[in-house]
Amino acid sequence: MVQMKFQSLKGFRDFYPEEMAARREVLDKIFNVVRRYGFREVDSPSVESMDLFRIKSGEEIVQQTFSFKDKGEREITLIPELTPTIARMVVDREKTLRRPIKWFSMPKMWRYEEPQSGRLREFYQLNVDIYGVKGPEADAEVLAVGIDLMLKLGLEGEFVFKISDRRFMQGALEGLGVTEVGPVFAAIDKRGKISPEEFKQLLATAGLNDFQMGKLIAILDTKGPITEALPKVKALLARNDTVVEGMTNLEKLAELMTMYNMAQYCEFDPAIIRGLAYYTGTVFECFDVKGELRAVFGGGRYDKIVGLFGGEDMPAVGFGMGDAVLEILMRRAGVWPQESITTDYYILTTKPQFKETETFLAQALRENNFVVEVDLQGRNFGNQMKYANAIGARHVLILGDKEMAEGKVTVKNMETGEQVMKEIREFLSSVGR
Amino acid sequence: MVQMKFQSLKGFRDFYPEEMAARREVLDKIFNVVRRYGFREVDSPSVESMDLFRIKSGEEIVQQTFSFKDKGEREITLIPELTPTIARMVVDREKTLRRPIKWFSMPKMWRYEEPQSGRLREFYQLNVDIYGVKGPEADAEVLAVGIDLMLKLGLEGEFVFKISDRRFMQGALEGLGVTEVGPVFAAIDKRGKISPEEFKQLLATAGLNDFQMGKLIAILDTKGPITEALPKVKALLARNDTVVEGMTNLEKLAELMTMYNMAQYCEFDPAIIRGLAYYTGTVFECFDVKGELRAVFGGGRYDKIVGLFGGEDMPAVGFGMGDAVLEILMRRAGVWPQESITTDYYILTTKPQFKETETFLAQALRENNFVVEVDLQGRNFGNQMKYANAIGARHVLILGDKEMAEGKVTVKNMETGEQVMKEIREFLSSVGR
Repeated sequence: MVQMKFQSLKGFRDFYPEEMAARREVLDKIFNVVRRYGFREVDSPSVESMDLFRIKSGEEIVQQTFSFKDKGEREITLIPELTPTIARMVVDREKTLRRPIKWFSMPKMWRYEEPQSGRLREFYQLNVDIYGVKGPEADAEVLAVGIDLMLKLGLEGEFVFKISDRRFMQGALEGLGVTEVGPVFAAIDKRGKISPEEFKQLLATAGLNDFQMGKLIAILDTKGPITEALPKVKALLARNDTVVEGMTNLEKLAELMTMYNMAQYCEFDPAIIRGLAYYTGTVFECFDVKGELRAVFGGGRYDKIVGLFGGEDMPAVGFGMGDAVLEILMRRAGVWPQESITTDYYILTTKPQFKETETFLAQALRENNFVVEVDLQGRNFGNQMKYANAIGARHVLILGDKEMAEGKVTVKNMETGEQVMKEIREFLSSVGR
Repeated sequence: MVQMKFQSLKGFRDFYPEEMAARREVLDKIFNVVRRYGFREVDSPSVESMDLFRIKSGEEIVQQTFSFKDKGEREITLIPELTPTIARMVVDREKTLRRPIKWFSMPKMWRYEEPQSGRLREFYQLNVDIYGVKGPEADAEVLAVGIDLMLKLGLEGEFVFKISDRRFMQGALEGLGVTEVGPVFAAIDKRGKISPEEFKQLLATAGLNDFQMGKLIAILDTKGPITEALPKVKALLARNDTVVEGMTNLEKLAELMTMYNMAQYCEFDPAIIRGLAYYTGTVFECFDVKGELRAVFGGGRYDKIVGLFGGEDMPAVGFGMGDAVLEILMRRAGVWPQESITTDYYILTTKPQFKETETFLAQALRENNFVVEVDLQGRNFGNQMKYANAIGARHVLILGDKEMAEGKVTVKNMETGEQVMKEIREFLSSVGR
């Protein structure tokens, strides 16, 4: 036998119990917030036909996926995102699904990309979507869920939602007489990472003259708190239909976010465009306030998705939030939960013949929903105490000669060190829930 | 655009909200039981190097997996089972991990097999393991978890754990002078599906004479309630070391299961051998009592696994339980949870201008951990009531002209039909948790 150590693949993670305990706490909080808004959990395959993703993202997606031919020569892939699957499920039951369709899910996804900070080959992504509602009430509800979960994770003051509407910037460029918007969008996307001169150069290459550039930069610079920024930018704009549709939506959205008492977490930022070609209205991304990290999450309205997958047209809005950047942000903010495990009761026995009483006690406590561990390997008193400490036992129940002779148990509070001997029966009825 | 409908791949499942609600209830119960025994959740990659699985299962496993070469030409696979990953994680930290290592996890797994009842290409499997404990106390604890979770799922009277020890049947055959045990084990494995004559023929082909056959069949026929069957089989056996080791283990295990008050769910069945070559002691499988289904789960002791993966020798015992057969059994027993969704409050508003009060009320209730839905699309009273019914709303809160004029809300109990009008403030403080 060759003795070799195996490793996990690059960009894939192992979570040991202490790490997982912290993650579970975070996941529970996230699920809890999403559920409160009436989103319903769904689950779906981790493997789908490659074509499902080509429909939305074209041939280039293939290079970014873990895709392969199965033994039946079908071209399949580990899912790189959830939206196509959700769209498939909606289309499959479009005749019978009750509207609005409010779904969430937080499955694993996989991307074949070079692993870096906040970008892994295997990650979890929360997806929250509303299908079937046209109005901004749905956009607002989805945004509220996102903001609420950041707050419940203890991130108040650490994040900002940057919001715009696809139609707004598109209409603004049309109004300025820009015909080919693609290169301009690309330039805007790069603006944060380059100098003002380089930005202007990109715009010039994209065919903008000085007047157009000045106007565009003025519009981009209106970004700021949503309730203040929208009136400002309105004054700068030529009013074509596209702009008006976008503005109307954003104004209504700002009004709704004020009702949610969440407008203070929302910034209007016309530079938010999002790479995906399929957004049709509201677009947003959530960033750390320091602007050091990738987007924590992003989303928006994509009313064409169901049609794209062969269904009747149906409006849709939602977001995706990966776990990797969120974890980095939470750690940086000092709100990642403590990585430790806890145990309600450790039962310490000093002789093998006490096993029967130990088992009786353990099972009675477990029936009352307590986490209970017992000795499995005949350790001595000191080593059992050490183990109890290591597993974060809140109480140690000692069954020694004296206790057993009297039908009692010593209950030691591990925080205070206090210990009292009690009748076993009396102890059990005192902890019964 | 070609309009086409996509489907999920064969052997993969979509879970819509109602289905998922039932599954979530089952999963929560399972996790809760396992946690009570002090097992700690871990998480690990869905994709591993193919070699990790070859080590344990040889080349033939490759044909049963979703395996492929990634874009870096590495031979990788969707995990077909969890044990190799867990062994890898244990070996990776063997110097520092506290013993006993008590881990659980319920990830997705994939097998490239023809889908049939209870066998899917993508499934969830609960894995519960104890590493680092040699004695039968660990075997008993693992068995107790398995039995406890079947009971908590409402399956009392529907299942039986069939238990044996690898060494027992091996030693018994040695004692009978059978040198090549492989074909005999294969025959025993088939016994339930063939006639007594066919069974004897297989044994004859395996080289057994009439005396050996008679003895073997007598041993196999001792199966029954564990506390009764063990003394019976003991009388039939030649006492070589291997048999004695197996018997001693099983007797101790039976004693421990009696302490757990769970011996009544355990049957001794010397025919339980398990296909996997790596079991070293206790082996068990859980079946439906009618014997109609595949094993609900199986496990045992496999003390060589850590050494196999390059670590220092470390004892290990555990089980795996897939979700597919469990679901079939629960449905057949009528204990699969109701597939429906519920909502604590639906807020019904009759005019758009009541949105602000609606939002205030909704957010206050959500802060108190209630699941709340509101109208997102300006539906009329009747349609909102229909929707509230469809989402299983326990209460509908009505904000109409009269209520709004008086700062009140009508609270309608959807079960009794009873409705009362209350001050909003008073209502909120009455439901505050």
